[in-house]
Amino acid sequence: MTIANLSGVVPPVIVPLNEDRTFDRASYEVHVERLIASGVHGLFILGSSGEVAFSTRERRQEILEATMSIVNGRLPVIAGVVDMQTERVLEHVRDAEAAGVDALVATAPFYALGGMEVVEAHFRAIAAATDLPLFAYDIPVCVNVKLPVDLLMKLGTEGVIAGVKDSSGDDVSFRWLAQANEDAGHPLRLFTGHEVVVDGAYLSSADGSVPGLGNVDPDAYVRQWDAFQRGDWNGVRAEQDRLARLMHIVTVTSGVSGFGAGIGGFKTALQLLNVIKTNQMPLPVARIEGDNVEAVRSVLESVKLL
Amino acid sequence: MTIANLSGVVPPVIVPLNEDRTFDRASYEVHVERLIASGVHGLFILGSSGEVAFSTRERRQEILEATMSIVNGRLPVIAGVVDMQTERVLEHVRDAEAAGVDALVATAPFYALGGMEVVEAHFRAIAAATDLPLFAYDIPVCVNVKLPVDLLMKLGTEGVIAGVKDSSGDDVSFRWLAQANEDAGHPLRLFTGHEVVVDGAYLSSADGSVPGLGNVDPDAYVRQWDAFQRGDWNGVRAEQDRLARLMHIVTVTSGVSGFGAGIGGFKTALQLLNVIKTNQMPLPVARIEGDNVEAVRSVLESVKLL
Amino acid sequence: MTIANLSGVVPPVIVPLNEDRTFDRASYEVHVERLIASGVHGLFILGSSGEVAFSTRERRQEILEATMSIVNGRLPVIAGVVDMQTERVLEHVRDAEAAGVDALVATAPFYALGGMEVVEAHFRAIAAATDLPLFAYDIPVCVNVKLPVDLLMKLGTEGVIAGVKDSSGDDVSFRWLAQANEDAGHPLRLFTGHEVVVDGAYLSSADGSVPGLGNVDPDAYVRQWDAFQRGDWNGVRAEQDRLARLMHIVTVTSGVSGFGAGIGGFKTALQLLNVIKTNQMPLPVARIEGDNVEAVRSVLESVKLL
Amino acid sequence: MTIANLSGVVPPVIVPLNEDRTFDRASYEVHVERLIASGVHGLFILGSSGEVAFSTRERRQEILEATMSIVNGRLPVIAGVVDMQTERVLEHVRDAEAAGVDALVATAPFYALGGMEVVEAHFRAIAAATDLPLFAYDIPVCVNVKLPVDLLMKLGTEGVIAGVKDSSGDDVSFRWLAQANEDAGHPLRLFTGHEVVVDGAYLSSADGSVPGLGNVDPDAYVRQWDAFQRGDWNGVRAEQDRLARLMHIVTVTSGVSGFGAGIGGFKTALQLLNVIKTNQMPLPVARIEGDNVEAVRSVLESVKLL
Repeated sequence: MTIANLSGVVPPVIVPLNEDRTFDRASYEVHVERLIASGVHGLFILGSSGEVAFSTRERRQEILEATMSIVNGRLPVIAGVVDMQTERVLEHVRDAEAAGVDALVATAPFYALGGMEVVEAHFRAIAAATDLPLFAYDIPVCVNVKLPVDLLMKLGTEGVIAGVKDSSGDDVSFRWLAQANEDAGHPLRLFTGHEVVVDGAYLSSADGSVPGLGNVDPDAYVRQWDAFQRGDWNGVRAEQDRLARLMHIVTVTSGVSGFGAGIGGFKTALQLLNVIKTNQMPLPVARIEGDNVEAVRSVLESVKLL
Repeated sequence: MTIANLSGVVPPVIVPLNEDRTFDRASYEVHVERLIASGVHGLFILGSSGEVAFSTRERRQEILEATMSIVNGRLPVIAGVVDMQTERVLEHVRDAEAAGVDALVATAPFYALGGMEVVEAHFRAIAAATDLPLFAYDIPVCVNVKLPVDLLMKLGTEGVIAGVKDSSGDDVSFRWLAQANEDAGHPLRLFTGHEVVVDGAYLSSADGSVPGLGNVDPDAYVRQWDAFQRGDWNGVRAEQDRLARLMHIVTVTSGVSGFGAGIGGFKTALQLLNVIKTNQMPLPVARIEGDNVEAVRSVLESVKLL
Repeated sequence: MTIANLSGVVPPVIVPLNEDRTFDRASYEVHVERLIASGVHGLFILGSSGEVAFSTRERRQEILEATMSIVNGRLPVIAGVVDMQTERVLEHVRDAEAAGVDALVATAPFYALGGMEVVEAHFRAIAAATDLPLFAYDIPVCVNVKLPVDLLMKLGTEGVIAGVKDSSGDDVSFRWLAQANEDAGHPLRLFTGHEVVVDGAYLSSADGSVPGLGNVDPDAYVRQWDAFQRGDWNGVRAEQDRLARLMHIVTVTSGVSGFGAGIGGFKTALQLLNVIKTNQMPLPVARIEGDNVEAVRSVLESVKLL
Repeated sequence: MTIANLSGVVPPVIVPLNEDRTFDRASYEVHVERLIASGVHGLFILGSSGEVAFSTRERRQEILEATMSIVNGRLPVIAGVVDMQTERVLEHVRDAEAAGVDALVATAPFYALGGMEVVEAHFRAIAAATDLPLFAYDIPVCVNVKLPVDLLMKLGTEGVIAGVKDSSGDDVSFRWLAQANEDAGHPLRLFTGHEVVVDGAYLSSADGSVPGLGNVDPDAYVRQWDAFQRGDWNGVRAEQDRLARLMHIVTVTSGVSGFGAGIGGFKTALQLLNVIKTNQMPLPVARIEGDNVEAVRSVLESVKLL
């Protein structure tokens, strides 16, 4: 499978840390091998779940190198080059190219805003600086901009972007994007990031999903994809219902929120599943501890993952 | 069918106006009869689409009386009692009861906010003042409050509310609400208001839909519901894809927005379909005119409604 | 003083309730007489502080009639005609006219939104329906629309509106509005609703203030105005510093928020000051009780009001 | 003057670029010397106006080194270390320390959010890693978090932060912060970033201002500060009124917005004033051109800067 026809489940890989918050490469390898073994169709590294916002350039390079070395061509690897504005993104583009990734993912520029022309110029500048396929990452909760269907289709039909990772939560817009994409000959590969309603995105003709929860239960997302491929909608739905219950690992905790509850919940589950050694979080986020760990465990047990 | 087991398609009925902005009862009757003939399972009047925010108490009474007279018991009628705060809502409750509706729909209080305890007290005060079943209308875009799953389930299991009309656009929350509702023995009837992704809501086990676009093409939503009932997901999806295209009647216009583009688009379509006499809008909203009418016509033609 | 040259302190009068939530006219009279005795320059009734969102048409009429009877021409009375959309506002306009008020205050339409053309049409429709001067109430936190300087100046120079009550919290916009107003020959009377930074608004050449906290300590706002009139900026500032401390009656409570903490704090202070009989709040808002009352008392004592 | 008693005007220095978007050090020197000659009391580099979001680590180092070399101890230099999360900020801390700056400025973490405990941990982690005084930069429009008074005072009294640069636009909160700071013995140096209402912040007892517009007319802000120091409030106000008019250089342009209109307006003014060579903007922002330049020129002429 190449980026040009990429489809299926592409989990946004989380980053295990040692107690001292250095990169736990050993656990990372176990985790990535588990993902590959599950049959996922690609890996998205250095996304929001992949601690891109917390990672220095050096840390990003560690993750890039480890991933490419472990994967060794078995799957396409898409790398986030997320940063505030263009020049900083371009630095990450060069690093990702040097590491040999298969495609890039960039958000709209953030921190300083300036209208949709500026967003468009940003994607054009990135695309002009690389030969790699570029995905637009639509994540308004982080960058305060929703990428409109018209802009995405314009960039897609002109070959500026190769696809979209949609984490907007706007399923109406996603449906319309999918239809516009179909009408234009499918220039864009469309992936949803909403792990709780992937089934709805498949009804909307998504090319695949980028489920954060896929770090915890990749098998289920692969089974769901296979059911979709064979037209078994009851299967698609049943897997989703179970995964929606599993997703409560990010809501059962108290006293943590946002990234700490979300990625913290994933890491805690993976530690309980003996995939990674610790659920340590990057500064300034607190790890999940005590009763909150037990709460996560109960959710895992409720869906028979533990 | 009673409210206690209400399911299926319950369109939020729009309100045709004469040129002078009085209530066009004749067109309303044609419109309601067309809806009933299509096989919809209930009617939701005085919702956001039903101009509740624009209607004086007298106008609301006109709509209530016309509806009950036309429907004459053939279908359950659910009436919005939307207003800013409790006492004003209670006035509408008494009017709706007097008209003989089957159930009520209220939003969270708005304009002045005050925390979730206040929202809960609002629904409890309304329920205490009526014997009619009460639906909670979750529409944060209008009232700046998202009704949380926990509150809805608490109110549902205690019998304060009988159901939810979800126009939140938060499909993750809706999935979790549906699962919590199932776990609790299904105390709530759950309807989605998102006409572009009703298929996703059916995957999430919605009891039905309240699609504004159902004013324009009720047959399609009924066909979609029937497909859902017989497990024909490809049928559900195909109807949705067509309806998503039809929904562009609210996006193809320029120079209008929000209610003017949305309900204005529905009314314009209904005028073009010869269901209602004018596409007149309530003050202060401008009606759709000129090229915008032609744009709506093109969309209708593209899906063979015209 | 007439509306055309209205300036000074115009408190937004709160509404005392009996225990059973009926209108406590006796306390209202004591409260209004206390305001008048302090030397305030006008009264703004049925504003956000004046429970306009909670009041049925009948309650609004009670408040209108009581106010006009008590004031009896001693001061200009400006009445809020706040409601969701135009026709409902026009009903209140007729009631306010019948009661004999001196001017009206309307917000942008809310609940259903539709762009700035719709907002403009709303103000034009109201002005066309009355001979009374109309103030625009800029309160985005309640109506989700910020009234832009350009629109306000257009409406002002054309005589559609006579003034602005600014509760936007956007002091930059207010400064620019004041300058544009001055350049246009001062067609608009400009009042700030931000009781904690009235001194800054006076630096920006406001024509006066509409301080909710003026219900509790009208004398201080009048002293501040007098200091402003004689150019005593240190006096203006000193009064503001004390009033900013007094304003903590709305922040020292816990478990209440928004309207309940704000107007609840004002009512509790007025009850402690023996101006009104109860601090009862309208449904669905809980009154302030227990330790929270003592917390309000401590603030009053700290600034020597008690 | 040291950081511990820093007060007065501390402009956030903009960054002139060459046509090819490299750093125009020559123009920067002219610009910084002009600022110093005006009598400003400190310089804030690498703030939002200082293109921190657009600058790679190398660019930041260029700016740090150029500034320290040009200033050469004549004024305190405060450097932004703005980045998404802690580890990335710490990298900038080390670079700023190496360059010899006098103090640091950090925002709340952004892109990934997680509650106020996480924000607190972020500031504590930064402070623990440096001996330099740390300012908290309150800029919710960029980072989606408003720093609450309680947290700032806690961090201030414990010596974690030395001051606050307030760009929140929340003047009520600023007043309360100033009072709480005074009550606690003034542990924090408080600066406002709102160049259009600095006079109001001085009424609220700000220790100074960080006005972006001070890049264009530093003399006026220094005159305003001097008027404040001698209690000449009419002088403070008159300077502010003129500066509010000058600030329209960021609003008279069309087709640009946000950073492009704001910093673009400042750069265009400085080019017209012959301070810097070009008004070039960093990628992906378009520079101001054509009629927009003339519009900026007209504003400069209207206040006699040209």
